[in-house]
Amino acid sequence: MKTNNYSDKYHSDKYHSDTIIALATPQGTGAIAVIRLSGEDCITITDRFFKGKNLTKQSTHTLHFGTIRNEKNEIIDEVLVSIFIAPSSFTGENCVEISSHGSPYIVQKILQLFIDNGVRHARAGEFTLRAFLNGRIDLSQAEAVADLIASDSEASLQTALKQMRGGFSNEIKFLRTELINFASLIELELDFAEEDVEFANREQFKALLEKLLTAIVRLVDSFRIGNVIKKGVSTVIAGRPNAGKSTLLNALLNEDRAIVSEIAGTTRDTIEEAININGITFRLIDTAGIRAAADAIEAIGVQRTMEKIQTASIVVYVFDVTQTDLSQAQQDVANFINSEASSVIVLANKMDLKHNINNNSTESLIENPLKIFSKKYQEIPFSSKNPQDIEKLKNTLWNTVAYDFGTDQTLVTNARHYEALQGAAASIQKVLDGVAQNQLTDLLAQDIRAALGYLSEITGEITNDDLLINIFSKFCIGK
Amino acid sequence: MKTNNYSDKYHSDKYHSDTIIALATPQGTGAIAVIRLSGEDCITITDRFFKGKNLTKQSTHTLHFGTIRNEKNEIIDEVLVSIFIAPSSFTGENCVEISSHGSPYIVQKILQLFIDNGVRHARAGEFTLRAFLNGRIDLSQAEAVADLIASDSEASLQTALKQMRGGFSNEIKFLRTELINFASLIELELDFAEEDVEFANREQFKALLEKLLTAIVRLVDSFRIGNVIKKGVSTVIAGRPNAGKSTLLNALLNEDRAIVSEIAGTTRDTIEEAININGITFRLIDTAGIRAAADAIEAIGVQRTMEKIQTASIVVYVFDVTQTDLSQAQQDVANFINSEASSVIVLANKMDLKHNINNNSTESLIENPLKIFSKKYQEIPFSSKNPQDIEKLKNTLWNTVAYDFGTDQTLVTNARHYEALQGAAASIQKVLDGVAQNQLTDLLAQDIRAALGYLSEITGEITNDDLLINIFSKFCIGK
Repeated sequence: MKTNNYSDKYHSDKYHSDTIIALATPQGTGAIAVIRLSGEDCITITDRFFKGKNLTKQSTHTLHFGTIRNEKNEIIDEVLVSIFIAPSSFTGENCVEISSHGSPYIVQKILQLFIDNGVRHARAGEFTLRAFLNGRIDLSQAEAVADLIASDSEASLQTALKQMRGGFSNEIKFLRTELINFASLIELELDFAEEDVEFANREQFKALLEKLLTAIVRLVDSFRIGNVIKKGVSTVIAGRPNAGKSTLLNALLNEDRAIVSEIAGTTRDTIEEAININGITFRLIDTAGIRAAADAIEAIGVQRTMEKIQTASIVVYVFDVTQTDLSQAQQDVANFINSEASSVIVLANKMDLKHNINNNSTESLIENPLKIFSKKYQEIPFSSKNPQDIEKLKNTLWNTVAYDFGTDQTLVTNARHYEALQGAAASIQKVLDGVAQNQLTDLLAQDIRAALGYLSEITGEITNDDLLINIFSKFCIGK
Repeated sequence: MKTNNYSDKYHSDKYHSDTIIALATPQGTGAIAVIRLSGEDCITITDRFFKGKNLTKQSTHTLHFGTIRNEKNEIIDEVLVSIFIAPSSFTGENCVEISSHGSPYIVQKILQLFIDNGVRHARAGEFTLRAFLNGRIDLSQAEAVADLIASDSEASLQTALKQMRGGFSNEIKFLRTELINFASLIELELDFAEEDVEFANREQFKALLEKLLTAIVRLVDSFRIGNVIKKGVSTVIAGRPNAGKSTLLNALLNEDRAIVSEIAGTTRDTIEEAININGITFRLIDTAGIRAAADAIEAIGVQRTMEKIQTASIVVYVFDVTQTDLSQAQQDVANFINSEASSVIVLANKMDLKHNINNNSTESLIENPLKIFSKKYQEIPFSSKNPQDIEKLKNTLWNTVAYDFGTDQTLVTNARHYEALQGAAASIQKVLDGVAQNQLTDLLAQDIRAALGYLSEITGEITNDDLLINIFSKFCIGK
């Protein structure tokens, strides 16, 4: 059970093993509600208020029909009670789940009965915290539980599932084990420092460090895509006034979300809506048209547009092909290319209104864009009125992300893991530099320990109270 | 299993035994969600998508950890599956409960997987309907399940629980059995009609009928109180403008719900808020002051006040003791006494402003009210500013209802039951009249059959499709 520092604390500190209770199902009226208890005494306590079989004599993973009665033997509800005996439970402690009728009033009565009798209402994430403290799951798996509950697309579900089932932890643990093996040789050298021996072959060591660094850098890089998969890919629709941005948003959503008019400057506030394209969520952000604003409100709108573009993953720049002067649009795109956005998709819009096209060539905003800009630039002839164009744009959006996504790669989705991996990468780089410079063994050992520390933080082998509070307080109650 | 007509239909009609599925917990995000399946094949079907133990080989009332995987063997979620083998389940059929992570996205994916593989989404109340059709519960018990889920006070919970556990059904069945015993003797007389014998002793029969009638009339009468306990006791606060009605509402709710001003006619729309006093819900209804209205909007308000008074269970009439002319208030109360309201509580309000009281006597609106009016009239000196007065009023409200409530009495809470009991009472009265007039045996038999029919309707021994559809369509999905 002693898989982390806090397990020690747990076993020495009675506080953690008290019995906790919380509603585990969503608030509201339904057919049934499930109330969850965890703690050494939870089966005994439940048995006091349960009329049916003697719950303390039942096997683990069994269900029992009966009634919950209060101290006066008045029935509160007919229920089904599930028994989980330690360590075969989610938390690793004895657990009980009471399945009652789904009335908020009944749920409140049952919670109150137990709380009046010494059971404590669980804090946010406390069941999962106990699973971690009891060594049932590591920290990154615990964090994945919250991600799983919050998942709202196929990609975010699969990433969270993989992390919860230990895929990510195993990768980190593998890197860590490789590093530990060499670290132990380095530490051995320290013990024999006066004899000036090298147990650790420097060439092998360097090769290992480079392998580790590559793997960690790949994980660091995956955060950009992992994060957008979890939170949705921020996709800013930008362009000059009246280029057709709001019409495009409405066409992608297939609803009248944004107000559309012939009047330039119709959109002032940014409008955000999510769409799911083949399992990936895109947060579409319609913005005010870029121009010298007509009034103060529009000026704020234009300012917000520029801010959104800076933080976007994808910029969809819309320009109106029926306009004769494209210099402003060209200037806009040139500016965007320097933004953080991973991709700029330029839509040559209103192709349906372009009457003077007499061959198959389409209007291009920038000649030979691939020569001028990076690969991330694409230009597409487009009309919001053409359903095929809408589908084509959706495919382009999806491919832009899926290109980075890959199916089997482990993705980092958590900012905490991202930071720890960055720290590990920096430490390993220092070790590599040290080896190259024939640095003293004790300095190398110090950086290796730092790298190991960063990797251990991710799975929770090394942790502290503040970190745990920070992680689990973001959970919902009952989890 | 053949406890009602529809059981026959059930067993001859494949339609009813297909596998159904629905989310049983409330919509939304939570730690867990429970998806329920029922039907002969539901364990086999679940086993196809469950990776873990072979579910078809498990005992009833056991829990199994594993994963739900789609046709492509992709994991949708880690789940706990509960197995219930017929007839030991809520519906009386094989049942499965899948406890997944509480993400609406995951729930949707699991539902979709089963629906894509031939499982049908359950209609509202269909699980409970099956419990009824399989003879697990009778109709009044099924109806109580819906009441239990909707219960929001101690009184409504206890009434629904008692009905669900068969308390009410047993009382009806007892009455019915008594009636059937005599009815069989009457029917026997019909078989020997030509011989002019009387198997059923007419005096004993009359005594039984009177006993039955008393019991049924008591149940009919209990509907008034049973219904208010289920729906809350409608309590209208009425009075002349500026008597302090809205201030009283706010004081009872302990919040600034209604706008209060010195200007007469401040309240126009009726305001409804519920409070729970010792387990009984009161629906407090603040109304426009009674007067010749100053404008058309106020006139509608006053009209609504009069309508609310007509349908109220309790009228709290507020008058201002600082006013010198009480003739209008006296006239109002005289009018209310003839309303349907079970009680009129008159508050002699603003006692805190009454400076000219120099003895302990309080202002009384009507001298010797108990002589003039029925017992249901009470008059209380009052000030909304005095917390003790507020408590006293709450006690008075509670006693008004609890007086009728009783603790052990069976209460009719369902309009359908109420109507059936009225029909039974009328039929039994006809039988009694017939006996008194030495009516022909076959006429008596006809009315007895009618009375039996009404009683059977309540528990569902006699029923029809329209009735079932009507009852179960009011349930929530998943129940």
